[in-house]
Parts: sequence; C-alpha cells; structure tokens
Amino acid sequence: MTIEVSAFRWVPPFAQGYVRDLRVRWALEEAGIPYHAALVDRQMCASGDYRQWQPFGQVPAYRDNGVELFESGAIVLHIAAKSEALSPADEAGRARTTAWVIAALNSIEPYAQILIQLKDSRIEPLLDARLGALSAWLEGKDYLEGRFTAGDLMMTTVLRELVNSGTLARFPILDAYRQRCEARPAFGRALEAQMQVFRDNAPANA
Amino acid sequence: MTIEVSAFRWVPPFAQGYVRDLRVRWALEEAGIPYHAALVDRQMCASGDYRQWQPFGQVPAYRDNGVELFESGAIVLHIAAKSEALSPADEAGRARTTAWVIAALNSIEPYAQILIQLKDSRIEPLLDARLGALSAWLEGKDYLEGRFTAGDLMMTTVLRELVNSGTLARFPILDAYRQRCEARPAFGRALEAQMQVFRDNAPANA
Repeated sequence: MTIEVSAFRWVPPFAQGYVRDLRVRWALEEAGIPYHAALVDRQMCASGDYRQWQPFGQVPAYRDNGVELFESGAIVLHIAAKSEALSPADEAGRARTTAWVIAALNSIEPYAQILIQLKDSRIEPLLDARLGALSAWLEGKDYLEGRFTAGDLMMTTVLRELVNSGTLARFPILDAYRQRCEARPAFGRALEAQMQVFRDNAPANA
Repeated sequence: MTIEVSAFRWVPPFAQGYVRDLRVRWALEEAGIPYHAALVDRQMCASGDYRQWQPFGQVPAYRDNGVELFESGAIVLHIAAKSEALSPADEAGRARTTAWVIAALNSIEPYAQILIQLKDSRIEPLLDARLGALSAWLEGKDYLEGRFTAGDLMMTTVLRELVNSGTLARFPILDAYRQRCEARPAFGRALEAQMQVFRDNAPANA
C-alpha cells in the first residue's frame, strides 16, 4: 500500500516539532507502515487542488490506495482501524479509542489553544478543570485504557503543547504520562522525521 | 439492545436546544434506534460514579449492551457504525464520515466557541476563513459527501451555534445547508425530545 502524508517543507522554529503531521507520522511508525511525505508550502496549501484534498488548506492530508482523508484525528483513527498497535480490534475497544481521540481534540485542545495562541487567561480555570479531571482519570494508570492506543497518542500531542507555558508542570500525573508516551521509540522516529525535513529545507537566512 | 444516554433534567433557556445530547438523540432518530434518557443534574455530574462514565463530568454519556462511551462525536460515530442511515458501510466512506465529524469538532467548533462564549472578536478572521473554506466546499452540494452522513449531523449542530451572533447570515451557503439538515424529521424529533424534558422539569420559579 502506498501512503502519502502532506507536511510543511519548513516552518519557523517555534512550530517545529508541533505541526500536526507529527500525529500521523507517529501513528504510522507505531503501526510499522511506511509512508511518503508530500512536502507543501503555504502557497500550495491555498490552491484549489490542495483544497480538494484538505478543504481548510491545512496540514496534514492523507491518501492511501483506498481513500483520501484530512483531519489528523480522522487519519489516526483510519490507521488505528488497520493496526492493533493503535487500538483493540473489537467494536467496544475501537469505540473507547475513538472517545479518547475526540476528547483530546474537543475537550482539551480547544482550551489549550485559547491559552497558547490567544493568551486569553480567562480560560485558565476551565482548562485546569479539564486537566484535573484527566489527571484524576489517569491516577494509578499508565495509559487511558490500560494499554497504549491512538487515544494516548492524540492526548500526548495535545498535552505537550502545554509544556512551555508551565501549565503541565502543575499536573505531575499528566506530565509523567506525556513523558511516558513520548519515550516510545515510534514517537522519537516520527519527531526526527519531521525535524529532518526542516533541517533539509531551512532557508539560507534563517 | 438497551441504550441509555445521559441528559440534563433542566438547563437555563439560553442553553435549551443546544445541549450536546441533542447530537446523540438526532443520530439515534436517524438510525431508528430507541433509547432511554438518563436525566442528571450538575451535582450528579460532579460525582465519582458519573465520572467513571464521563471523565469530564459533561453531558452526554452513553451506554449500550456492548460499551460505555463519552464525547458526542465518538458516540455519534459508534451509532453510525451500526446504521447506513448515518454513514456508508465501506471503509473509505466511514473514514470520510469520521473526517467531517472531527472537522466540525476541531476545525470549526473551537473557533465558534471562542466567539460565542468568550466574546473574543480577535478570533473572527480565523473563524471566517474556516467558514469560507467550508462554504467553498459545499458550493453546489446538498451535503458534505453527496449524501447525508453523521458528518452533516455534527457540522449542523456546530453551525447552528453561530445563528444568534449573526455570523452564519454572512455565509448564505452554510445557512441554507444548516436549514436543509435541520428540516430532517429526525432532527425535529430529537430537538422536541430534549425540550420536552426541560418543560417537564422546569423549576417553579423559572
């Protein structure tokens, strides 16, 4: 199967290691599925052709022999449906994996982004309540559902956005969980693959 | 199969018709699957028992004979996996449905919520860019993928949050799409079921 994942040719240093193709690269590394990175820039993302692939002009987009997809969460769940490395194969296990992927994207990340991108501190009590609930769920557990799944993958990529602001340091259970997941060899390979592209394509004046 | 969905016994008028159990009720109505609403209040949501069911103490939570779930998006996708009324049955069609469910929850709703809840107008250019991209995708189409799916269901519940602010009126293609989806009999039944609970349990002084 030929798999193609869109990724930026280069981004400024603050975004390096955080562009969302990292999530898809990580999932494919966990599943042991090879892929090709289709490098794009902002101008290509704005084109009509690219928007047929990714309607919002964002990264990543994905295609394999059977389907074209967008939204990192949907791509990761599509890969998880092919690999027990990312989800139990039974219907209930897959549904629980989906619940945690969406919890990361809809119950945690929106509040984290308001703090990080808009620097709107009014969100802090609500974000802290969500992180506190997640911390309570994870107390005494290594993973959200007793084993590593795509839900842990997605949650980790959201939690690591909260490291630099100092937010995660106030939730030691979550920070230890994030570090446990980031220590997986597949995460290291995915991160290195994204960073290598940026090194290869660094502008001469950067 | 016995299905139970948690829903609030009562909420203030501004939230009536918008609580997220509406999404699950709508999906079950489209699929023709009967369910029981398990009524809760804020105090019950904060309890340890409820948080074993819904880790963030939110509504809705869901259970059937096979699984307990949370996150409206995950619940709707779980129902869609059981009913072709909500998704094509093939792998590619299911993946495209998932992409649009997650696009609604992660590419549109977070920006909408910043405008509605935080009234932070700095988000307007970004929200408008996302809505403009969605409008371009829907131009000349009745539904996101040529037929009604769970993706349209979820997108409609997000877009209707933008009616009162006047935002959606600036995107006539999106407003017509929202109205087309809301005209479905299953939506009407779901909305009426949520509202009936609030009428039945209105506080004497409300």
